[in-house]
Amino acid sequence: MSAPDRRTGRSGSTRRQFLLGGAVAGVGAAAAVGGDAALRAVAAEPAPAPPHGEGTVPFFGPHQAGIATDAQAHGLFVALDLLDGTDRPALTRMMRILTDDAARLTQGEPALADSEPELAAAPAHLTVTFGVGPRFVDRARGRAPDWLGPLPAFGVDRLRPELSDGDLLLQIAADDPLTVAHAARMLLKDTRSFATVRWSQQGFRRAHGTVRPGTTMRNLFGQVDGTVNPVPGTPDFDEVVWSTRDWLAGGTSVVVRRIGMDLDRWDRLDRSGREQSVGRYLSNGAPLTGTREHDEPDFAATTEIGFPVIPEFSHVRRARSEDPAERIFRRSYNYDDRPVGDGISLSGLIFVSYQADVDRQFVPIQRRLDRLDLLNEWTVPVGSAVFAVPPGCAEGGFVGETLLA
Amino acid sequence: MSAPDRRTGRSGSTRRQFLLGGAVAGVGAAAAVGGDAALRAVAAEPAPAPPHGEGTVPFFGPHQAGIATDAQAHGLFVALDLLDGTDRPALTRMMRILTDDAARLTQGEPALADSEPELAAAPAHLTVTFGVGPRFVDRARGRAPDWLGPLPAFGVDRLRPELSDGDLLLQIAADDPLTVAHAARMLLKDTRSFATVRWSQQGFRRAHGTVRPGTTMRNLFGQVDGTVNPVPGTPDFDEVVWSTRDWLAGGTSVVVRRIGMDLDRWDRLDRSGREQSVGRYLSNGAPLTGTREHDEPDFAATTEIGFPVIPEFSHVRRARSEDPAERIFRRSYNYDDRPVGDGISLSGLIFVSYQADVDRQFVPIQRRLDRLDLLNEWTVPVGSAVFAVPPGCAEGGFVGETLLA
Repeated sequence: MSAPDRRTGRSGSTRRQFLLGGAVAGVGAAAAVGGDAALRAVAAEPAPAPPHGEGTVPFFGPHQAGIATDAQAHGLFVALDLLDGTDRPALTRMMRILTDDAARLTQGEPALADSEPELAAAPAHLTVTFGVGPRFVDRARGRAPDWLGPLPAFGVDRLRPELSDGDLLLQIAADDPLTVAHAARMLLKDTRSFATVRWSQQGFRRAHGTVRPGTTMRNLFGQVDGTVNPVPGTPDFDEVVWSTRDWLAGGTSVVVRRIGMDLDRWDRLDRSGREQSVGRYLSNGAPLTGTREHDEPDFAATTEIGFPVIPEFSHVRRARSEDPAERIFRRSYNYDDRPVGDGISLSGLIFVSYQADVDRQFVPIQRRLDRLDLLNEWTVPVGSAVFAVPPGCAEGGFVGETLLA
Repeated sequence: MSAPDRRTGRSGSTRRQFLLGGAVAGVGAAAAVGGDAALRAVAAEPAPAPPHGEGTVPFFGPHQAGIATDAQAHGLFVALDLLDGTDRPALTRMMRILTDDAARLTQGEPALADSEPELAAAPAHLTVTFGVGPRFVDRARGRAPDWLGPLPAFGVDRLRPELSDGDLLLQIAADDPLTVAHAARMLLKDTRSFATVRWSQQGFRRAHGTVRPGTTMRNLFGQVDGTVNPVPGTPDFDEVVWSTRDWLAGGTSVVVRRIGMDLDRWDRLDRSGREQSVGRYLSNGAPLTGTREHDEPDFAATTEIGFPVIPEFSHVRRARSEDPAERIFRRSYNYDDRPVGDGISLSGLIFVSYQADVDRQFVPIQRRLDRLDLLNEWTVPVGSAVFAVPPGCAEGGFVGETLLA
């Protein structure tokens, strides 16, 4: 996977030349001295990173990483538009290059011709996950699944085109924000001949070590968010997430929706009102009929005077289906932009869900929520995109090969 | 320090009412049930956070926290403009409220009437540090130090007013991004009657656990940044940082400058050229005349043909003074905004330095860098602000009391 001729215009000696460098104009002699001493310094002081920063997630495999991977603290989502001239051979070149970048960076190695190789040394569980939009599939001359394209229009949507859709998605996630920044730069530099950035969204969850592993995340409303989620490594997860069809076998789909949360209006609601709107306690995420987060909600339970304990309009009831096929795997991130002036917050959720079939699994849930979910009072979707996520690849292969090779 | 009447319009029972809540319109009966069960759930499932998220930095003391504190992974800088009506009594009210918020939140307790109390449970070494601008001091009827105001104009500056100056600074820093987001919201809600947000800048360093404690940070150029820095807890640090004058005794000053870094042009420079421009190796930050980061640079060393090994125009040489008074304590953060379209990066450094006297310590260094520093080729200051940082306070007191009480 390191054959240099796969990277347009770069030879195998490029990185070495780069690291040891020629002279910058006007400082030739000093630069030559610097080059030699730099080599000695590298040899003399290896600086092993401590365990967590060194941690890696395997890149190669039947599925792409970053899906069944425990969600890292920082997630960057970048959607690109293909340039007009990016045809099938160009798509293949691009995906080979990006696969090579991702394979190296996720293992803590610099990308080929990495301009800041030292920033690659702490992968911190970096994963890079690729998704493709309908135009990508068309140009690759593949058959797009029926669900690949914009979601049906929902009544709650106030979508902005500059936060929606796209031809290629990069999900870049790690437990360190500098690692994410460096990986994003290296990957985007290598897309420059093929595509431009359409939108970019940066999100966070709790930092590694803040809470115990396995703790369900909280969103900026303070809610425990993501309790009902298939568990990676179980047959249940595999059934919900992995596709078995055509070039997408071993792959999946991802829905990325930017959902603004009106914290100012939410704060005017009292605590019980908030718990009613979700159907769960804020304290620990337990359903209003239970005491622990993973207790099964009792939708039949009523109060002394006959009202349902978990209201009809609560999020947890509206999201639940009797049909076991209508399930998704959520892997969302919070966002918090800083407004100026009178605004206090410009915050929300980058809702991210993986599922084998968008129409069969995601859409029915969203339709129910769209029709009646009290949370709609304080939330508004402003961005929406759907991508097909190709399967992983083996060493020597590349992501997208089932579509392009 | 918890006397409720210091918070305008809030009584001591507010938080309890808030937590246990009345009914939201239309769901009265169910809400009442929810309230009782919520109490039981809180009692049944205390969820102690693991060590790092639980970690706190003392709030009260002779100096404000967040200066000598090991720099946390995430730093948010918010500058506010005072409203016209915010007079001396209002400033006192505001600073009492903000002090109370900060004292609670930094210890992992909800602010009074915290709208999302669960988000306060993991302080993750949160600190809140307050700075005041010239207009704040005027309205407080204090005597402003000579250096409090905009810095002298430097030739390299391309300052944007909307990223510069301000009347009140909040530096909110923690090892967890959700903790920072929550603290910012609670604090800014309590400034709403007194001020509006002028600018806001969000930065990051390596996450806790990515590299070994004590490792000097790297900026997005890949440079080791901050090697020559006084060490907190030493007499040297105390001399550089803490003021001894007037109401500022035990306080200091902070310079916050947003410095754009042109990564695309930087990447066109070869490795030796980069090392020449800084005067240090990229690999480990050692001076070009040494092998280890903290080796003393030998500015007299020359190459075989007589050129200085550390060039005249290098950053490390220009930043160094023969005058031991010309030293500062740096505590900077990286930023990385995501551009759309052809841009790859919109990145740089939130340069933050603390020093007892801006004119005596910071300005001479910046003058030398302004006149001749090769790094100026790839960097451009776009924001600049100076604040006086009052001393800390004891329990029962408030930050700013030496100016306002």
